[in-house]
Amino acid sequence: MPRYKLTIEYDGTGFVGWQRQANGLSVQEALETAAAPLGCPPGGIRGAGRTDAGVHATGQVAHLDLVKPYRTDSVRDAVNSRLKPHRIAVRAVEAVAEDFDARHSAVRRHYLYRIVNRRAPLALDAGQCWLVKPALDAEAMRGAARGLLGLHDFSTFRDSECQAASPVRTLDGFDVARDGERVEIRVWARSFLHRQVRSMVGSLAYVGLGKWTAADLRAALDARDRRRCGQVAPSDGLYLTAVDYP
Amino acid sequence: MPRYKLTIEYDGTGFVGWQRQANGLSVQEALETAAAPLGCPPGGIRGAGRTDAGVHATGQVAHLDLVKPYRTDSVRDAVNSRLKPHRIAVRAVEAVAEDFDARHSAVRRHYLYRIVNRRAPLALDAGQCWLVKPALDAEAMRGAARGLLGLHDFSTFRDSECQAASPVRTLDGFDVARDGERVEIRVWARSFLHRQVRSMVGSLAYVGLGKWTAADLRAALDARDRRRCGQVAPSDGLYLTAVDYP
Repeated sequence: MPRYKLTIEYDGTGFVGWQRQANGLSVQEALETAAAPLGCPPGGIRGAGRTDAGVHATGQVAHLDLVKPYRTDSVRDAVNSRLKPHRIAVRAVEAVAEDFDARHSAVRRHYLYRIVNRRAPLALDAGQCWLVKPALDAEAMRGAARGLLGLHDFSTFRDSECQAASPVRTLDGFDVARDGERVEIRVWARSFLHRQVRSMVGSLAYVGLGKWTAADLRAALDARDRRRCGQVAPSDGLYLTAVDYP
Repeated sequence: MPRYKLTIEYDGTGFVGWQRQANGLSVQEALETAAAPLGCPPGGIRGAGRTDAGVHATGQVAHLDLVKPYRTDSVRDAVNSRLKPHRIAVRAVEAVAEDFDARHSAVRRHYLYRIVNRRAPLALDAGQCWLVKPALDAEAMRGAARGLLGLHDFSTFRDSECQAASPVRTLDGFDVARDGERVEIRVWARSFLHRQVRSMVGSLAYVGLGKWTAADLRAALDARDRRRCGQVAPSDGLYLTAVDYP
């Protein structure tokens, strides 16, 4: 069966997350329903990142097998036309080898976390950024973020329901940049634990607010204790932006 | 009566535009209702730019008079707390002289027009950008835009219902830049005619699509004839970003 790689954008608001669940509509289910006329069965679309409820994507990657070959642009357009009015779009479709697996072949996942740091509420970015009203020191956050780079036991920044066999991960990048009232945090690694990015970003915000020093953040990591996580940043600001393959 | 200058952000989707109208809710009316407990009467908030239905703003400016002085932050917070759930936010409030007039004192208005140029539908940017599916030549658009700079009779790019006394305006800037699938158009002038930006952008898109040359765009301007306007770009992509004062 011919296999296709999909690059997908979505506004996670209102979805129960990427993964199919009994309690509501997931992005995966909406995509599978839209792709059903092409021969995609329930569970037939497999994603690289299982984003939580409310988390967005500009570059989620998934694969699916179809019963017969189609032109890649036809797959994109057919699925998109059936996705309306969901805020999900298939940006690109590529034919890939049968051993390509969106989840297991991935060598790096990239996330962006968007903060708006101002007193006024969000209007245009409602649901798409985290509003932090007190002033954040982005330079302090940037310095502290570097302390989490490399191979560590990330138990502190792992959701209690995380099902990964090991809490050890290698964080390849964790960068913070301010542009006016916007603070953008980019983070990348081969893989992440459940809610790891939001747990790290929430704790990093403590540094930005002056509640924690960089040493406090590092001590929280070293404690390998979920109770030492500062806070979990809301889903609104998180975007899966890209997934790399060899 | 103390006068205040407000800087306002809004998602224009669902509003009948900036200006109060009998046929639906305007941004102005939503703001005046929110400011009423501070002593703002209907019609008491006057804006610099009368944006159309569906047009957004990140930097609309308005003024209002209150019956007694308040701290500027208190005005901002009081109005914002009463604006929910509307996607309108007062970003900043300043005390200004009693002869400050948001509309008549303005010396320059800045607009941004956002295009997403790709085959896939919009998901995250639905309602906030213009989706143009065929490839746009942004360099050709950039060159053609320069041909509209300066003092001209803009009758071609003026809505038939425009009430301005003269169709003559001076266009100070009209720039086009591409960043990946995004084409951003920035335009600034002391003032604009009704639907001038959307009329110019829609016609400029004809150049980007290869339907018109830069000379065709210039000939349309020189014709001073509304029937020569290429097309009017949709409201979704237009943002009033800033208003300058002396």
